[in-house]
Amino acid sequence: MRAERKRVVIIGGGFGGLYAAKSLGNQLVDVMLVDHKNHHTFQPLLYQVATAALSPGDIASPIRGILRRYANIEVLLGEVVGFDLNGRRVHLNGGADLAYDYLIVAAGATHSYFGHEEWGAFAPGLKTLEDATVIRRRILLAFEDAERQAAEGRNPGPLNFVVLGAGPTGVELAGALIEIARGVLAHDFRHINPSHARVILLEGGPRVLPAYPEDLSRSALEQLRSMGVDVRTGSVVTLVEPGLVRVGNMVIPSTVTLWAAGVAASPLGKMVSSSTDRAGRVPVRPDLSLAEHPEIFVIGDLAAVKDEGGNPLPGLAAVALQEGKATATNILRELRGESRRPFYYRDKGLFATIGRQAAVARFGRIHLTGFVAWVAWLFIHLILLIGFRNRVLVLVNWVWAYFADQRGARLITDIEPIGQDVAAAEKATKTG
Amino acid sequence: MRAERKRVVIIGGGFGGLYAAKSLGNQLVDVMLVDHKNHHTFQPLLYQVATAALSPGDIASPIRGILRRYANIEVLLGEVVGFDLNGRRVHLNGGADLAYDYLIVAAGATHSYFGHEEWGAFAPGLKTLEDATVIRRRILLAFEDAERQAAEGRNPGPLNFVVLGAGPTGVELAGALIEIARGVLAHDFRHINPSHARVILLEGGPRVLPAYPEDLSRSALEQLRSMGVDVRTGSVVTLVEPGLVRVGNMVIPSTVTLWAAGVAASPLGKMVSSSTDRAGRVPVRPDLSLAEHPEIFVIGDLAAVKDEGGNPLPGLAAVALQEGKATATNILRELRGESRRPFYYRDKGLFATIGRQAAVARFGRIHLTGFVAWVAWLFIHLILLIGFRNRVLVLVNWVWAYFADQRGARLITDIEPIGQDVAAAEKATKTG
Repeated sequence: MRAERKRVVIIGGGFGGLYAAKSLGNQLVDVMLVDHKNHHTFQPLLYQVATAALSPGDIASPIRGILRRYANIEVLLGEVVGFDLNGRRVHLNGGADLAYDYLIVAAGATHSYFGHEEWGAFAPGLKTLEDATVIRRRILLAFEDAERQAAEGRNPGPLNFVVLGAGPTGVELAGALIEIARGVLAHDFRHINPSHARVILLEGGPRVLPAYPEDLSRSALEQLRSMGVDVRTGSVVTLVEPGLVRVGNMVIPSTVTLWAAGVAASPLGKMVSSSTDRAGRVPVRPDLSLAEHPEIFVIGDLAAVKDEGGNPLPGLAAVALQEGKATATNILRELRGESRRPFYYRDKGLFATIGRQAAVARFGRIHLTGFVAWVAWLFIHLILLIGFRNRVLVLVNWVWAYFADQRGARLITDIEPIGQDVAAAEKATKTG
Repeated sequence: MRAERKRVVIIGGGFGGLYAAKSLGNQLVDVMLVDHKNHHTFQPLLYQVATAALSPGDIASPIRGILRRYANIEVLLGEVVGFDLNGRRVHLNGGADLAYDYLIVAAGATHSYFGHEEWGAFAPGLKTLEDATVIRRRILLAFEDAERQAAEGRNPGPLNFVVLGAGPTGVELAGALIEIARGVLAHDFRHINPSHARVILLEGGPRVLPAYPEDLSRSALEQLRSMGVDVRTGSVVTLVEPGLVRVGNMVIPSTVTLWAAGVAASPLGKMVSSSTDRAGRVPVRPDLSLAEHPEIFVIGDLAAVKDEGGNPLPGLAAVALQEGKATATNILRELRGESRRPFYYRDKGLFATIGRQAAVARFGRIHLTGFVAWVAWLFIHLILLIGFRNRVLVLVNWVWAYFADQRGARLITDIEPIGQDVAAAEKATKTG
């Protein structure tokens, strides 16, 4: 009997891959989950690590630990470098191969600089824990550098934080930045006044949170402005350099520039499908499988899935998670001789948090703003966080941050001499 | 009045510098604390970060945050590159100068490879948060790499962790390593059995914990062996290379090698004194000042201080902390026209923890071993930890780790392709 067990390979330990694996746990299949990181990252809270409210360990869990109780699941740390789609094999770095009967590709998305990859060094994006600690370091070093210049009698000039893109991540970063500057850091320095720092949120489109209902976009804009964020819509960035960004003919000085303007699907998409869309996402059938290869499923941010109205599903944890569960269910159905079922997304709403007590949310037809939306966001994210330990720790951190207005995670690690981050990036661009 | 206030510059935000600063807080002096990191690190618990029991944020606090309530204290992120001792100025990187009336040098110590600096790349030591995350990455990657080789049908060979040096840090690392391998990781893998990993503790001298009373050394040895650590005393390492260490003619294969064999005082010692000892420590007068420059105090691991019996004080947090306080008191006494007082160390005992419920401790004449010593160690370190938040978080982490036998902090960050750490180090050695 054992020899006949089908083998499912899952690529990616994000929400899609992890929930697919969990749903296949202790079932009559052999599962191999491959990721190039050893941990699952709770991406919705990454911006809190980037802005020093949480530590990396608070929002990440080792994938092995999450799946250890399922004896039929193996976890492998490795990088997928290609496929033999007809031979049903996954090629890993180092020359090894994994055979599969079913393949679930849940490799997610990364930043897109729209053909300006050279901007990446000066405007880091936020997709991984490493990204978050780079951003945290740049933000904290900007204040340290200004303090030191002022202490030495020099004029540090204005502190400008420029966030590019006003989707949920951009809005969250901008809100958290102005809160740090005017809150916890306000009394930490002697020569500079951190609350004079400016946070500028640039959005190419006509409104913030473009994927949200218009009334919530308006509310988010008002909440951001009342917190002191300088929001500029209709501002398409044409150049990113160390110390500045350019919008048309206008030069905006920028001490730290952050990228939240675009994502592109994992390059693995193009390796399994020749018909990816503009963002590199893979079109899938209603059961999330590929037309040419029914044994391959693509889920999460890498998949282009439409809802009943024909609108593309957003890149949300809730979408990926449901797609992972549905795919596992379909594989198990097929193994029992039943037919697959099409995937339907059960809408869990949309949230964007802007600051303490500031957020917008949509649940079905209910639109929430301000404090109520913020409490709903807090509650949902605590529930979603994987693992008891993380939940307790994050709660302790949040309660502490909320009442004491302290951010305990403001560590600068892997420090380079001040300014070297940008200097190195500049050099890299010039030489290559 | 204000113009007459004396200016105290403190170099280093470890226990010595921090407690000197706190004791000068809100007194009639101007204080400037300079550190090249933005955070104080609770060094006694660094090995817990290196072995994935705690997160970096659990054992570190931003120095600014700790000192923010003292209006007379400034904190500066910067690197000291030299002194003008007669002109009473500190030179910082970037060309700036700090003038002082009193200087407290508390720059601590770093690893010493006894003239074999090339070993550093293959046997990292443990002094900073960055060191701890490097070690954590290597340990966790060793298991991941073996699992992957086994999954691909190759023979991963034995997993050997070799710890060099059986002082407190070496003992703590060895104990924590065997606990990880036989505890939390034991059920995480499918192809390898982590509990077969070997932990080898090599000590050049005749006994572990050489600075401890002999009965405690014996007890530590027994506790380590009963946990499964292969302890070899009288083993002087003569070569460290990728994958092996050599003791005399014997080659010991080593998957991960850790250095806990020697420390050297900060190079700043030699810049303020021409009579440093073999370990680079600065001899000081009974009031911890320099004979040639009474306005300069050297404290903490950088100072060579003897107790009443003429024995050198150990490099402990408690010693540095008391020296910092005593120095601040002497400066304030002198400013009031009183004479300085000699420093006396109030012995707070010695602790080394070996594992869960395993430790040795000496308080005065009382020697404790096993569970009792471990509880004492736990209690003292919780009290010592700076800041309420860290104490609560660390407690939550410990309780969780203790009851669930889970280690939540086993994240591999800044991951390179497997083996590249060592490959890069190897290359660096060969080319430079």
